[in-house]
Amino acid sequence: MNLLEELDDALSPGGLLTGSDVTGRAAGVWRSDALCALAIARPRSTEEVSKVLKLCSKHKVSVVSQGGLTGLVHGADASPDQLILSLERMRSIESIDPLQRTATVEAGVTLQTVQESAEEHDLFFPLDLGGRGTATVGGNAATNAGGNRVIRYGMMRDMVLGLEAVLADGTVVSSMNHLIKNNAGYDLKQLFLGTEGTLGVITRLVLRLREAPSSENIAFVAFNSFESVPKMLKHADRELGGALSAYEVLWKNFYSLVTEAPAKNRRPLPSEYPYYALIEAQGSNQELDERRFEMALESALEDGLIVDAIVAKSSTERQNLWAIRDDVEQTFRDGPPVIFDVSLPVSAMESYTAGVKSSLEAQLEDSVCWIFGHLGDGNLHIIVQTPDGKAQQHRKTIEHAVYQPLESIGGSVSAEHGIGLEKKPYLHLSRSETEIRLMQTLKAAMDPLGILNPGKVIDPIQSPSL
Amino acid sequence: MNLLEELDDALSPGGLLTGSDVTGRAAGVWRSDALCALAIARPRSTEEVSKVLKLCSKHKVSVVSQGGLTGLVHGADASPDQLILSLERMRSIESIDPLQRTATVEAGVTLQTVQESAEEHDLFFPLDLGGRGTATVGGNAATNAGGNRVIRYGMMRDMVLGLEAVLADGTVVSSMNHLIKNNAGYDLKQLFLGTEGTLGVITRLVLRLREAPSSENIAFVAFNSFESVPKMLKHADRELGGALSAYEVLWKNFYSLVTEAPAKNRRPLPSEYPYYALIEAQGSNQELDERRFEMALESALEDGLIVDAIVAKSSTERQNLWAIRDDVEQTFRDGPPVIFDVSLPVSAMESYTAGVKSSLEAQLEDSVCWIFGHLGDGNLHIIVQTPDGKAQQHRKTIEHAVYQPLESIGGSVSAEHGIGLEKKPYLHLSRSETEIRLMQTLKAAMDPLGILNPGKVIDPIQSPSL
Repeated sequence: MNLLEELDDALSPGGLLTGSDVTGRAAGVWRSDALCALAIARPRSTEEVSKVLKLCSKHKVSVVSQGGLTGLVHGADASPDQLILSLERMRSIESIDPLQRTATVEAGVTLQTVQESAEEHDLFFPLDLGGRGTATVGGNAATNAGGNRVIRYGMMRDMVLGLEAVLADGTVVSSMNHLIKNNAGYDLKQLFLGTEGTLGVITRLVLRLREAPSSENIAFVAFNSFESVPKMLKHADRELGGALSAYEVLWKNFYSLVTEAPAKNRRPLPSEYPYYALIEAQGSNQELDERRFEMALESALEDGLIVDAIVAKSSTERQNLWAIRDDVEQTFRDGPPVIFDVSLPVSAMESYTAGVKSSLEAQLEDSVCWIFGHLGDGNLHIIVQTPDGKAQQHRKTIEHAVYQPLESIGGSVSAEHGIGLEKKPYLHLSRSETEIRLMQTLKAAMDPLGILNPGKVIDPIQSPSL
Repeated sequence: MNLLEELDDALSPGGLLTGSDVTGRAAGVWRSDALCALAIARPRSTEEVSKVLKLCSKHKVSVVSQGGLTGLVHGADASPDQLILSLERMRSIESIDPLQRTATVEAGVTLQTVQESAEEHDLFFPLDLGGRGTATVGGNAATNAGGNRVIRYGMMRDMVLGLEAVLADGTVVSSMNHLIKNNAGYDLKQLFLGTEGTLGVITRLVLRLREAPSSENIAFVAFNSFESVPKMLKHADRELGGALSAYEVLWKNFYSLVTEAPAKNRRPLPSEYPYYALIEAQGSNQELDERRFEMALESALEDGLIVDAIVAKSSTERQNLWAIRDDVEQTFRDGPPVIFDVSLPVSAMESYTAGVKSSLEAQLEDSVCWIFGHLGDGNLHIIVQTPDGKAQQHRKTIEHAVYQPLESIGGSVSAEHGIGLEKKPYLHLSRSETEIRLMQTLKAAMDPLGILNPGKVIDPIQSPSL
């Protein structure tokens, strides 16, 4: 029997897709190209995932796991000789324990479903990002997703208590820990979190839930200089106790873009300032929290940390302020721009961003560089467009201008999106040869045949390119 | 040249100790037996650590890294044919960045020194535990230390942004990341955090610091039933919105022990209740935080979640309440008891603890079992003594009674102390054969000669015992 016949036998009915059932699908939710693969295997259980991997090991066929295909770095791209393993038929919320505050779920469940299921129990799953309706928690885990509230709740890594994964040879490693503290041996889940499907396929997860916050305060503030931006972060962090949940900074030209027609957002503050921030606090008592929040803003104004501020007074106003930060679509008006998610020490941000801008201007006349992001986490989004709207054609030049300066300042070419294929050529800017070699050692030890998402993140250890 | 001569050459002057300089030292700060080893190597730098490991690889001599020797599970025990690698001459705070809120330190610096250095910059390093004056942050990292405020700030794993480690063959892996968000490839630091020196020797660390809290509220409360204990945790978590920093529960007999003569603590609440908790919140505004704290307690009293409560009104009163929780010494009055740090789902706690008590009573007449701990994290400390004060002689019986029931309820034989040698025979109760096999695969890949802290946590992969 050949691999496809064996797979068809191993999977429950309808589990195997081939031909136009494969090529009829888009390669990503924001992509226009089609999927390309030997076939798509859609197991219904960890056991079936194990069977698929055993067969692929036997036939030495590579496997690319796919979740919601919302990734941005070509981390789940497949080629015609590779099998796609889709978690789309493993979507159940197995249980929610309101006392232990955990959710036990299959990896194919969407982030939004987890969020909503938690809400039904007055609980809160803090991970949040634009692709929530499509992105799966398995994908979130495999890429260690970040998002808007990392400053308060950490990244996906910090929200996974336990997981089950299948190794390349089909071995099921079940580490479904429900405990916040567990030092019984190596913390094996770390091998699968953020390793982009190269060391195993995550099939089930135990997620940590939190009590739902019952108050929310949001302000939009303006700064006269970059120097005040991290100082205000410190101030807010100190004055708001543990309640600060987002600190999103917008550079002037991004603020102008998203608050000028044709963008639909109303401008909350004049556009004359060089930097703006959205500050959010989540708490438990609207009256007390509001007082504390306003006191923190008042003292910041008095101290000259901020020069203007507006506080949202209703849920609609709060949504409107977030809508400004989130209106990234405006940068797509003239065509798809080139998008980055770098992170770097806050002390280097002002000179780094100025350097990137002038380097881009020197090489690509009249190019625009919008900057905003999760400054509270050191994470900036940089979006670059050329006047002809064809930034993609200049991708290499743009990538070089953005990535190269990170090396000397200890920055990261990826704060949250991951490496995939797109950033692999730049990984050496953020990680030493020794670090990459250790990643390869792990890969070789756990996937000796090299069949799990091969070529993503790193090359195999024997690669002559290293 | 033999190993000792080569080591002496490789280390800066005074780096190698032998003979009575070794055996004159205690094997642990709370132990009476002497250190035992081939020699003690005391490098002054990562480079020297690398030289030591290269030489040990060459001579196939095993290496046991040692920090402050405050560990409780024999994780740093050495034998006469092993070299001790002590980090005691690598104690510098290299830098503190108040804006980035990081401390870059050598692994041999004590936890207390890091805490105090952070304080000098109005910052806060949240890890805290009894051995703070002696325990090193390298040891805290290698054992993923926990302590009292895990509920708010996580464990040591969550406070380490980057680290430098030396592999068995002397390779220096420098991952001195300063960023909260960094998804550039595998998160290699996880290989060294909590793996008890079996995969590498941590030499330097980048620690995440927090803004120092400026308000603190502490209450001691009493419960009528265990059912209310986790409900009150949920209530406090919800009502204190981000500020809850400790939730320490005391079973009745431990509370009585530490609040009755000869113990010196004054009793804050009557001793008639079955369970007590110390609840702590750290915030930013004493007035507002106190109001919120008292409101949370009042509503808990109204709802019958708690039946009695007292709020500390001064720093002295706060210290006195913590002193009750921390007066573990009382359990040592009649001789060294047997101490545990298990964790388990909160829903199983009442029946588990009752089961352990009755099983101990059945096997060891008149034995006493005190229970208290970080219930907010699922972590209980169980301390067992026999009426003759010779609990240690019954260690196996006691361990069996405490550990065995954890298997079926998904509990952990170690929430925070680690496995070392002491808990290795019980690791299989918390981890499956497949998980242990994967740990062994990692160990074999990263330390093929098996020279790093061999026999701790797991046996080598070829061991017939597995």
